[in-house]
Amino acid sequence: MTLFKKSEYLERLDKTKARMTEAGIDVLVASDPANMNYLTGYDGWSFYVPQCVVVSLDADTPLWIGRRMDVAGARHTTFLPDSQIIGYPENYIQTLARHPMNYVGDMIADRGWGRKTVGVEMDAYYFTARAYAELQKSLPDSRFANADLLVNWVRLVKSEAEIALMREAGQIANRVMTTAIDRLEPGVRECDAVAAVYQAQVSGTEEFGGDYPAIVPMMPTGEKTSAPHLTWTDAPYESEQMVNLELAACRHRYHCPIARTAYLGKNPPAKLVELAAHTVEGLNLTLAAIKPGMRAEAVERVWRKHIAKVGLEKESRIGYAMGLNYPPDWGEHTASLRPGDQTILAPNMTFHMILGMWMDNYGFECSESFRVSENGCETFAEVPRKLFVKP
Amino acid sequence: MTLFKKSEYLERLDKTKARMTEAGIDVLVASDPANMNYLTGYDGWSFYVPQCVVVSLDADTPLWIGRRMDVAGARHTTFLPDSQIIGYPENYIQTLARHPMNYVGDMIADRGWGRKTVGVEMDAYYFTARAYAELQKSLPDSRFANADLLVNWVRLVKSEAEIALMREAGQIANRVMTTAIDRLEPGVRECDAVAAVYQAQVSGTEEFGGDYPAIVPMMPTGEKTSAPHLTWTDAPYESEQMVNLELAACRHRYHCPIARTAYLGKNPPAKLVELAAHTVEGLNLTLAAIKPGMRAEAVERVWRKHIAKVGLEKESRIGYAMGLNYPPDWGEHTASLRPGDQTILAPNMTFHMILGMWMDNYGFECSESFRVSENGCETFAEVPRKLFVKP
Repeated sequence: MTLFKKSEYLERLDKTKARMTEAGIDVLVASDPANMNYLTGYDGWSFYVPQCVVVSLDADTPLWIGRRMDVAGARHTTFLPDSQIIGYPENYIQTLARHPMNYVGDMIADRGWGRKTVGVEMDAYYFTARAYAELQKSLPDSRFANADLLVNWVRLVKSEAEIALMREAGQIANRVMTTAIDRLEPGVRECDAVAAVYQAQVSGTEEFGGDYPAIVPMMPTGEKTSAPHLTWTDAPYESEQMVNLELAACRHRYHCPIARTAYLGKNPPAKLVELAAHTVEGLNLTLAAIKPGMRAEAVERVWRKHIAKVGLEKESRIGYAMGLNYPPDWGEHTASLRPGDQTILAPNMTFHMILGMWMDNYGFECSESFRVSENGCETFAEVPRKLFVKP
Repeated sequence: MTLFKKSEYLERLDKTKARMTEAGIDVLVASDPANMNYLTGYDGWSFYVPQCVVVSLDADTPLWIGRRMDVAGARHTTFLPDSQIIGYPENYIQTLARHPMNYVGDMIADRGWGRKTVGVEMDAYYFTARAYAELQKSLPDSRFANADLLVNWVRLVKSEAEIALMREAGQIANRVMTTAIDRLEPGVRECDAVAAVYQAQVSGTEEFGGDYPAIVPMMPTGEKTSAPHLTWTDAPYESEQMVNLELAACRHRYHCPIARTAYLGKNPPAKLVELAAHTVEGLNLTLAAIKPGMRAEAVERVWRKHIAKVGLEKESRIGYAMGLNYPPDWGEHTASLRPGDQTILAPNMTFHMILGMWMDNYGFECSESFRVSENGCETFAEVPRKLFVKP
């Protein structure tokens, strides 16, 4: 029933335990939904209630602890035996009287791990301030350590099976971007264009369907291009305007983000055309420079040097690790293509490189999702790298 | 530019300050994106980085504090003057060296509020354990108090302008559910049916577009109906199967959830037909009993008594307050229609009442979103309350 072979999950757990040992952590409480999925296979829209996977150096198999009504979903999607899937009762939900993390603490203490060092993901989206306080309350003899991003760093290098899913996401991404560009016309409401994008994201291809990306489609136009995280409106797209397209496709929670810029009109301004040419040239050059063994910061340097030659400012971060994820972000929060990042690139690390050049009242962006390959890099989508002009 | 009149935001702030005073809180740090929106108008997909609205009893106008690149979005969507919109620099993002909540703490201290009682939303989704620890570090002389749900309780009673948006969400919900039922056929892939639902959600009506609901469409069938939070697959729907439809529409972040059950085949089992009849009768009766002045628990009692008459088990919670929200949940986490909830219903409180009856291998669910009206209740959507049979 699981998406990957059991042996793959066990390998992920081994790598996680090695990092736990290094960090002096005996018991890891992973509540980031992507980490829960990575370690066990669990996949459900249940992260709006507290839940976690508990990995102990003392135990071969982790525990999944979640809401009782989600136990069936855990049985369906994880490799865990029923004995390792634990549901907390409904009276733990949304009350000041008790908290699911008290239940988690009790389960940890019951197994004799109450005096161990417990690692928690201090800055994971769904591990709230109260969740931590309640877990501490229920484990008064534990020492707590910050295990933030510990599993995320294990996720950085993908397996062949994960890469296969990202290639499928790439195929869906081609359709998503093509749909967006086809649908963009002056007079079309933003909501209708975005609706077509959603349709393409979820429908996928004839061979395989799509999953919900961790971020909604962003297709701002006009002055809203300077406010990158505003979502769509009912207003119609207008002619002689740029549209930034920050989209993605997702396959079994694995992402392929993709960004392009379109111009609605016959005559894009010459300065925009020129900016697009420089940016695309920089993207091509930078992708061509990637090799295993190179440092992440060196990738950014290739881009920065190129763009300086044509007299343009550098962007400080041009990409980030991504792959398996849930809302609100597809980024893995680990390696970045930016100055100072010493990560050494290795085959099957996966990144989204996004080059956005913003001038006073115009701009251009173009991106590729790729894996570091054995001797270079492989991009997942195949959409022309250019300014799309729609007359 | 704001969605509501400035006077409406000021009224919301007054109510919030009254609750702060009652709770002994001088300065409120609201990081729940729905509360940020409610208090200022801010609406953007930027909650994947720390951000907040700061309300002080000492200040007429709140502060919006977020990532520098989101300042333009805040200027676009909030009623705040530029002086109250503060962006933290990019080097606060995703690093162990510093945290955006240090910046927030500094802003609070700069205004002379560093020795006050600071309220934080301890269990809000995006207020992480680390966010709290860092805020405490930057405000060593502050007393901290739990302000969880403080603004949510203000949100419980909607204004006429908010109700107008929920009525529009209701009109979109009609299309969403109709689209889902139309599209369901044996042989249609789950992803394709869900894609059509997304299209309807976002496209909205000819008059107004839709927004992204806080929860993805759930349309499980077969044995997955017992695992309510698994999302869709590529598998085709099969004949002689039930499908549970838990959907929603959203208009400017205001929701209208709606649930129905469909049966793909000519001959739904008699026991399912009977269960549907009892449940719908119960829904009708319970909605008809609602009146302002009644307690929330009394609504649930009407349902429980009805269903006991036909020899069925009660559900412990049959509804919850909802309205304005962001992923991962459209519920407001305040009043519930369940035993023990003493909330006194008042006009323009809005709820989703969802009656799900689950037997061993079949079940039926039907729901309505409604406001308490001056003498009863008003439902937002208009989809027949019945088992949809698709021969």
